[in-house]
Amino acid sequence: MSSFASDNYSGAAPEILAAIAAANVGHQVSYGRDEYTERLQGVFRAHFGDTARAYPVINGTGANVIALQAATDRWGAVICAGTAHITVDEGGAPEKVAGLKLLPVPTTHGKLTVDDIAREAWGFDDEHRARPQVVSLSQSTELGTVYTAAEIRAIADVAHGHGMRVHLDGARLANAAAHLGEPLRAFTTDAGVDILSFGGTKNGMLLGEAVVVLDPELDRGLDRLRKSSMQLVSKMRFVSAQFLALLDGDLWLRNAGHANAMATRLADRMRDLPGVEISHPVQANAVFVRLPEAALAELHGRFAFYDWPTGPARWMTSFDTTPDDVDQLAGAARAAVTSIRHSNREQGLAMARRKVTRAGG
Amino acid sequence: MSSFASDNYSGAAPEILAAIAAANVGHQVSYGRDEYTERLQGVFRAHFGDTARAYPVINGTGANVIALQAATDRWGAVICAGTAHITVDEGGAPEKVAGLKLLPVPTTHGKLTVDDIAREAWGFDDEHRARPQVVSLSQSTELGTVYTAAEIRAIADVAHGHGMRVHLDGARLANAAAHLGEPLRAFTTDAGVDILSFGGTKNGMLLGEAVVVLDPELDRGLDRLRKSSMQLVSKMRFVSAQFLALLDGDLWLRNAGHANAMATRLADRMRDLPGVEISHPVQANAVFVRLPEAALAELHGRFAFYDWPTGPARWMTSFDTTPDDVDQLAGAARAAVTSIRHSNREQGLAMARRKVTRAGG
Amino acid sequence: MSSFASDNYSGAAPEILAAIAAANVGHQVSYGRDEYTERLQGVFRAHFGDTARAYPVINGTGANVIALQAATDRWGAVICAGTAHITVDEGGAPEKVAGLKLLPVPTTHGKLTVDDIAREAWGFDDEHRARPQVVSLSQSTELGTVYTAAEIRAIADVAHGHGMRVHLDGARLANAAAHLGEPLRAFTTDAGVDILSFGGTKNGMLLGEAVVVLDPELDRGLDRLRKSSMQLVSKMRFVSAQFLALLDGDLWLRNAGHANAMATRLADRMRDLPGVEISHPVQANAVFVRLPEAALAELHGRFAFYDWPTGPARWMTSFDTTPDDVDQLAGAARAAVTSIRHSNREQGLAMARRKVTRAGG
Amino acid sequence: MSSFASDNYSGAAPEILAAIAAANVGHQVSYGRDEYTERLQGVFRAHFGDTARAYPVINGTGANVIALQAATDRWGAVICAGTAHITVDEGGAPEKVAGLKLLPVPTTHGKLTVDDIAREAWGFDDEHRARPQVVSLSQSTELGTVYTAAEIRAIADVAHGHGMRVHLDGARLANAAAHLGEPLRAFTTDAGVDILSFGGTKNGMLLGEAVVVLDPELDRGLDRLRKSSMQLVSKMRFVSAQFLALLDGDLWLRNAGHANAMATRLADRMRDLPGVEISHPVQANAVFVRLPEAALAELHGRFAFYDWPTGPARWMTSFDTTPDDVDQLAGAARAAVTSIRHSNREQGLAMARRKVTRAGG
Repeated sequence: MSSFASDNYSGAAPEILAAIAAANVGHQVSYGRDEYTERLQGVFRAHFGDTARAYPVINGTGANVIALQAATDRWGAVICAGTAHITVDEGGAPEKVAGLKLLPVPTTHGKLTVDDIAREAWGFDDEHRARPQVVSLSQSTELGTVYTAAEIRAIADVAHGHGMRVHLDGARLANAAAHLGEPLRAFTTDAGVDILSFGGTKNGMLLGEAVVVLDPELDRGLDRLRKSSMQLVSKMRFVSAQFLALLDGDLWLRNAGHANAMATRLADRMRDLPGVEISHPVQANAVFVRLPEAALAELHGRFAFYDWPTGPARWMTSFDTTPDDVDQLAGAARAAVTSIRHSNREQGLAMARRKVTRAGG
Repeated sequence: MSSFASDNYSGAAPEILAAIAAANVGHQVSYGRDEYTERLQGVFRAHFGDTARAYPVINGTGANVIALQAATDRWGAVICAGTAHITVDEGGAPEKVAGLKLLPVPTTHGKLTVDDIAREAWGFDDEHRARPQVVSLSQSTELGTVYTAAEIRAIADVAHGHGMRVHLDGARLANAAAHLGEPLRAFTTDAGVDILSFGGTKNGMLLGEAVVVLDPELDRGLDRLRKSSMQLVSKMRFVSAQFLALLDGDLWLRNAGHANAMATRLADRMRDLPGVEISHPVQANAVFVRLPEAALAELHGRFAFYDWPTGPARWMTSFDTTPDDVDQLAGAARAAVTSIRHSNREQGLAMARRKVTRAGG
Repeated sequence: MSSFASDNYSGAAPEILAAIAAANVGHQVSYGRDEYTERLQGVFRAHFGDTARAYPVINGTGANVIALQAATDRWGAVICAGTAHITVDEGGAPEKVAGLKLLPVPTTHGKLTVDDIAREAWGFDDEHRARPQVVSLSQSTELGTVYTAAEIRAIADVAHGHGMRVHLDGARLANAAAHLGEPLRAFTTDAGVDILSFGGTKNGMLLGEAVVVLDPELDRGLDRLRKSSMQLVSKMRFVSAQFLALLDGDLWLRNAGHANAMATRLADRMRDLPGVEISHPVQANAVFVRLPEAALAELHGRFAFYDWPTGPARWMTSFDTTPDDVDQLAGAARAAVTSIRHSNREQGLAMARRKVTRAGG
Repeated sequence: MSSFASDNYSGAAPEILAAIAAANVGHQVSYGRDEYTERLQGVFRAHFGDTARAYPVINGTGANVIALQAATDRWGAVICAGTAHITVDEGGAPEKVAGLKLLPVPTTHGKLTVDDIAREAWGFDDEHRARPQVVSLSQSTELGTVYTAAEIRAIADVAHGHGMRVHLDGARLANAAAHLGEPLRAFTTDAGVDILSFGGTKNGMLLGEAVVVLDPELDRGLDRLRKSSMQLVSKMRFVSAQFLALLDGDLWLRNAGHANAMATRLADRMRDLPGVEISHPVQANAVFVRLPEAALAELHGRFAFYDWPTGPARWMTSFDTTPDDVDQLAGAARAAVTSIRHSNREQGLAMARRKVTRAGG
């Protein structure tokens, strides 16, 4: 049975495996000087504009930490949401590998605001504070929400006004595009984003992400940062071939759109149910729900999903989640919640009776 | 045409691709809690003994830097050959990611000796010297040579006597095993090696290496080092499935043995030729040759291979190098060298004649 | 005129300079193998118990980052107050030098609680979270408050229960002792603290701090960490001689007690004034006050002090602050506040009049 | 008795202590915004030219590591002599604090040559090699030798031609100036040096060094590097006041000239003695001598000095070494060597006799 634990519990999309097999012919120059990686540049430029340059890497942590290094001096700090993957889920890699200071900011739905940025934008002349040099946004966020192009533009203006750069953690950038219904460049390059991490793995690749430099001023030493940050793949054709299969066509958008649709379907199935609360707007491929404890426990016995630190259950959908998967989970959840309410009512009546009895006793 | 540039110009072995495809079924827990990774432990134990524990990672740099961190304190230094990949070819990753001080030692054929270790084993009570805590050996070496089990044992004894650990960079460990004709544990676990990096990529995998901890005392925090060193793969089943295909059977040994045999064949074709010198013993899958400059230039026009800093041409063979590939390169090289000798003799005669002429003029 | 900007605007106490001069005789072994540093160990043991071992260093950042390294693995994280010097004022040094992940927690008066610790104590088995290994407390805090021995004991119990260590940033530990009226060990060694940074500079030394290891299990490699973290002084006798002058007698307590008394005097002079608010309990040598903007501006013209990010003015007292200094500041502040209130009343009347006039106009 | 172990076994020059005492008046802004540090800039400009900007720090390791960071990207490597303090004696701080890769080169007398630089100047387009971005020279060297201005100029030309920067480790820069008889700028700024570490401690200061940026292009973020590398002193007036005493006048040159003269006197006393070899040219304040083992042992019983890894004894002189100190050491050394030669001759005769006896037996 399919799980709702994470979009990386999925395998690879069939088109991806086919591309790998097709690339397994003869010798290719290693470390990215192969013909697939060469071709990839044009594909990324088509999506992100003529200034874009892509550096395939291995995983999202690597993509983020390389991008942040490209955008900071040795003394730089990074403003991010308190829920950002870079501060919560990367085992301290930004600090360890790059010596970066993170400045996490509490948010409601995982999205930074212009005011958040302004509030953290101080100390530029005070060496006691690691200098804020980057604002890092997750798009879509770890809570399944999506910034609009206008929101990103506004944040970028504030950031640039302070001499800071804007980085997107785009592990799920495709899901954001599917939600917004806009081309990738509309809410990245055109909205003032300077550099981003583009996620392939969660969108159906076997493995692979890319650092995409949008402002050529930041395109310095990226190959060196990739190597010294241990993210250089020798047989890079196999990563690039996957990206070609994903991006040179609409596979990326179909996969993401499907995952999003499954999340919406799931949320819709739950929304009207008394005792159930959808914690965050469902805009990408995540549904966070608050359920009665007992229902949660029962569902954990039958479905794989994570409880999130902020409290609710997290249900992730993926490119390979089926409507039937969704309906099974939603059905089980509704049944569990309903039966608990009944049982609670029964208990309530029973307790009322006991009270009567006791009173009479 | 096949190249002799590097064993990572090859693609993946067909068995490897088949294993990936077979693993692409349904959902699996990510980050190594999948059934393939679980099974992999038994396979590594079969090769390296009951104490072994394997941590699949992405690339050789990552495997080495994680292993070295596991074997050092924050103030540790690592003795290695001056030709070691960790000091020459990893873009400074050991220094950058782990803050490690390397103590490179000049060698003749890429192999450290007991005397080298002893000479660098000082300053253990002097905080001005980063404390030597690891001896790192490449097996097989970057120059295509192989340590015997007895050599490793002797080095391990000296190292352990000084409280140091022994690490093997085994990016080409299979080639060493094929050369020695011994099981992997004979020259690793049983020879006193504490931790090693096991290479899959150069042995026919699409991508994947492993840190293998042999001394359980070092098995602390490896999962954390892997994550914070940015070497954790989310869909790890696809790395582990490759390793199962490679190691649960003799594919690893067949691939390595074949590559070695091709190197031997190539060296044998060149050995008797005047003006050609094999620079290092050919024990694994590399042939280093010294050729006349003009011959080198001509061969570069037709075959892909690297000139090595130490001077000679480096010809690497791979699991997919064919006898025909070898014979073509060897044939071309012989022809080039021979034609140059002739041309040199002609030139010599011409020069002699010119001298005569001038004398007469 | 004396300033209230920081206790490090002061010079050195006369006893300190005398000790430096007295130590300037003949040659001494460098790097801490001198007779002064040797004697110092006994003095620190007298204050902190027989297990204590002191490592003189140069500045507070150095002391903290060395101590935190001694108490963490390469993958460790540190729980601290959001106002802690280590996260706010050290320019990112813990991240840069030691790769440490900090987990700052919002507090009211700069003090962590048992509940704060418990709330951050998760993820010990999840490699995606840098592992919490240390709780770092500032004593006295950056907001001039002081933990009681019982509070530290309770926090240490929770921390130790999770396998974490307790570190004190004691840049102003003497001020805490003076406030508590207890020997140093009562709220450090005896309260479960494992390692601390002991501040000399802000207590009248020219320059010098010490890492004091209380739990001998952590006394590994400290000399190496001090050197590789660039905190080793060659002519260490001059740091140690200062510490002897400070600690082998009661200079440390007199200096701190005096500074505290001056802060109390200052707070008392302000406390009853309408429109003035003391933001945090005044327990050490800092007074944080909220004043009308106009009064603040006027005082900035005449006295040196900092506005703190959290809003109020910060007035620090020092070992050399005189009662007269305090009375001048307090007098000026009272005058400014009072005159503003008058002027506000006048303005209020004037505005009322204008309104009347307008109404009539 | 005075020692010959190191120039940091000395205390502080009396002028230095007097300057500290004179600076201990009233409050001063901390962290370098005091009037002493302000004045210091002019003094450094007088020595190094109008582009120079000085950043006082604490120790030589700190000065070097900060300067090297200012001159490198995150992926930079540093070419240095194999005997350089930065690679031999800093406990791995360049690697640990800055992630720098060092490329040490064997030398005869601690001095790099143009050929050495050229030989290491490769791999600028190869991400597998940490990019050489700095050539670091020690002036005077750890072996007591001195580069001429012309030598530095030639090296700087080669380095700059490859886009590399030139750093001087000037822990003993004053000794070099005294030897060369030239103003400081002649062999630094005017010879193409981009940044340097200026040593105060070994020249009679209590404690203090400075990073001096000569090329303003490198003057970016130095205050931030100083802070985040933990080298910022809060009561900086006390470091700057020492530097003023040293450099605003000729104390620096007198101290260094005296130390050099004492080394020359010592070498001269030893030079003619059979069985004694001066290992390196004596140009600064170090004498390296090769003596018979037995003589060495006897001298170790009476004088403090170090045996150097390269074999000979190292005798360092200082600003406070007296001619009498020198004559005592030289006298004892001559006596020991002479007595050993006699005893050897006796032994030789005795052995000859024994042989005779045996032959007769």
